[in-house]
Amino acid sequence: MDAERALELKCRLAKEGCRKLSYTTTTIKNAALKNIADDLLLHMPGILEANAADQMAARTAGMNAAMLDRLLLTKPRLEAIAADVHNVAALPDPIGEIFDMRTLPNGLTIGKKRVPLGVIAAIYESRPNVTVDITALCLKVGNAVILRGGKETIHSNKALVEVIHGAVKRAGIDPDVVQFIDNTDRALVPHLLRMNDYIDLVIPRGGVGLIKSVKDNSTIPVVAGGAGVCHTFIDSCAKMADAIAIVYNAKVQKPSACNALDTVLVHKDIAAAYLPLMAAELDKAGVEMRCDTISMAILSKNPDLKLVEAKEEDWGQEYLALTAAVKVVDSVDEAIEHIATYGDGHSEAIITEDYTNAQRFLNEVDAAAVYVNASTRFTDGAQFGLGAEVGISTQKMHARGPLGLKEITSYKWLVYGSGQVRP
Amino acid sequence: MDAERALELKCRLAKEGCRKLSYTTTTIKNAALKNIADDLLLHMPGILEANAADQMAARTAGMNAAMLDRLLLTKPRLEAIAADVHNVAALPDPIGEIFDMRTLPNGLTIGKKRVPLGVIAAIYESRPNVTVDITALCLKVGNAVILRGGKETIHSNKALVEVIHGAVKRAGIDPDVVQFIDNTDRALVPHLLRMNDYIDLVIPRGGVGLIKSVKDNSTIPVVAGGAGVCHTFIDSCAKMADAIAIVYNAKVQKPSACNALDTVLVHKDIAAAYLPLMAAELDKAGVEMRCDTISMAILSKNPDLKLVEAKEEDWGQEYLALTAAVKVVDSVDEAIEHIATYGDGHSEAIITEDYTNAQRFLNEVDAAAVYVNASTRFTDGAQFGLGAEVGISTQKMHARGPLGLKEITSYKWLVYGSGQVRP
Repeated sequence: MDAERALELKCRLAKEGCRKLSYTTTTIKNAALKNIADDLLLHMPGILEANAADQMAARTAGMNAAMLDRLLLTKPRLEAIAADVHNVAALPDPIGEIFDMRTLPNGLTIGKKRVPLGVIAAIYESRPNVTVDITALCLKVGNAVILRGGKETIHSNKALVEVIHGAVKRAGIDPDVVQFIDNTDRALVPHLLRMNDYIDLVIPRGGVGLIKSVKDNSTIPVVAGGAGVCHTFIDSCAKMADAIAIVYNAKVQKPSACNALDTVLVHKDIAAAYLPLMAAELDKAGVEMRCDTISMAILSKNPDLKLVEAKEEDWGQEYLALTAAVKVVDSVDEAIEHIATYGDGHSEAIITEDYTNAQRFLNEVDAAAVYVNASTRFTDGAQFGLGAEVGISTQKMHARGPLGLKEITSYKWLVYGSGQVRP
Repeated sequence: MDAERALELKCRLAKEGCRKLSYTTTTIKNAALKNIADDLLLHMPGILEANAADQMAARTAGMNAAMLDRLLLTKPRLEAIAADVHNVAALPDPIGEIFDMRTLPNGLTIGKKRVPLGVIAAIYESRPNVTVDITALCLKVGNAVILRGGKETIHSNKALVEVIHGAVKRAGIDPDVVQFIDNTDRALVPHLLRMNDYIDLVIPRGGVGLIKSVKDNSTIPVVAGGAGVCHTFIDSCAKMADAIAIVYNAKVQKPSACNALDTVLVHKDIAAAYLPLMAAELDKAGVEMRCDTISMAILSKNPDLKLVEAKEEDWGQEYLALTAAVKVVDSVDEAIEHIATYGDGHSEAIITEDYTNAQRFLNEVDAAAVYVNASTRFTDGAQFGLGAEVGISTQKMHARGPLGLKEITSYKWLVYGSGQVRP
């Protein structure tokens, strides 16, 4: 059997398996999750051995330390992964919710019932925890999953999937609902991305390059975060202490996060007072500031700051590091315009005491999350109270912003009749 | 400027225009719709003249009568189109709804606000009414629209769009929010389907071929109905009179509709009693029946019926005509299995008095709409109480089944803070 046919077979098996899974009870699904958590610990030696093989191959291939750390599994890491699976088991199951139910004038009772999406394909890179993480989230809401991890973690992933298959089977669920693509030939990915007949959703997990490549090649719906170029606008009437604390938090608390601040926009009327204080604070964390002409003129009086003249590329850049672009603007209009031009629709904030400007910002800025007087770092499934987080979407279809369990479900219309025909 | 650049410019203008449209008030959007309705009647002579040019060109090209009728505009047809626009204006506007609003333990008040999707591209065939219809639905909920109609109706569409532009502008809305692609070169469509940076959703309106081609080539999310292969299963304990009336209605009331019956599955214990009565009724409307061996043995005793031996292709075929496939099955399990194999997830019905079988059917059949004891012909936006209908989706992402106005919207997260930073 050639590679493409083998791939299609896996997709078909997932699709066939997901039918029964879609009406499997929460009790059984949770039992499968608990089995997975237990078995990860039980089979730890074998999993760590497989991971050691990946580590050795990666070292031989000259992989750098940061990358090696990404694919490393250890006892505490596996324990954390197992604990996360228990957490998913403990969450409420959104499947089966009946909503919008009503009786029409003709006596038909109609409404919607929440059902699984079906088959989700996850395409990811070198973190082996994604294998368990995405499987647990999918199984919780009755979705079959097709896993396509990176070739660097092939041994770890194989070991993890073997454990998952055993655990799922013991709970009475067909292990075909978890498919693992062990052929990591990149040429197969575009074929996977065209399996519309079997796959309902593709979730890419990884860097900007992976996400773009998946989006550009998939004819299946994709839910993915784009880059998160996040702006915070300090209005002329912002509370000074809040504006400093919020910008510091948004930039420094976790610079590698997609909801971290990239550009600070400052109203011209507050720039001379605010910028030196903000910069002194950011400087304590070693933040490099890429400044426009006006902010440079204000900040360059302090010779200790790490200042760089901003280039056009700095507007709309996601730094994922201790770097921030700084720009002085004339008005809330210019701030909104700048965000419309350079933003990606992730998370955008205004710091202001002006009622009208706050309302205008919330209304006119088109992003997954729009904030008044808070750090953009809150854009997150757990912070927003969704329980688990599947990812953050910057698209507008289906679901926007943090995706929880409900966001990887669909619904069907139920129609209860008593002999009705259409006139 | 070459054709591709010209296309991209139109998409960019739509995207730019949709920003302001997204927070335009309902009053202004409704004024634009009323202007469109009024102006269609005011400029009727010019529109009918343009349509006559299309008709002439089509006749010269040898177009058949059915196709000519599809692209024909007349006074009553234009009046009906204008009346539909008034109806859309009269519907409630879903934009601006605030939902799931709550205050978190840290004092952040967060919730969701319904907003437009953004830019919708409509790709359709020869019916010029779609130009007005889809524009009205998009504008009502603040979406910009890019229209790509068939080349057969190019003169009509140009005239209609000119009227729309004038009407929209008079209401104070930027006419750039309605873009018309006057270059009907088919080679441009794949470029349009990759304009991810500007377009949020593609809606194909037309035959199975058009829909498949759009789905196969689009990297933008597509919402489209697939074929509607609809089954009705007559269980052993069905009420006889209901089972006959429902099958007759589902097949005969409008055979060209996607929710019309294609295959009747009949439980073996009721087949000998039911099938002759059902067939006699369907025969009154001239329905041809494609029968499996058992149903053929039962029905062939009546020499007046139009019976054909079913071939494998008949299972899973959408007839869109007075034709029905007929099959006798052993059990509700076999019926569910048959539907899983040959259905498209559109509308599926069981006719039964058995409580458990009814529940199992609703639970286990994976379709946009699942019915007990009613005709599948009800799967429709107006029948389901959605007001307008944009289309019917057989996909599971975003929205499923009949799409109303709410189904072409998105949401954004609103976050009201008072200085919160993430710990």
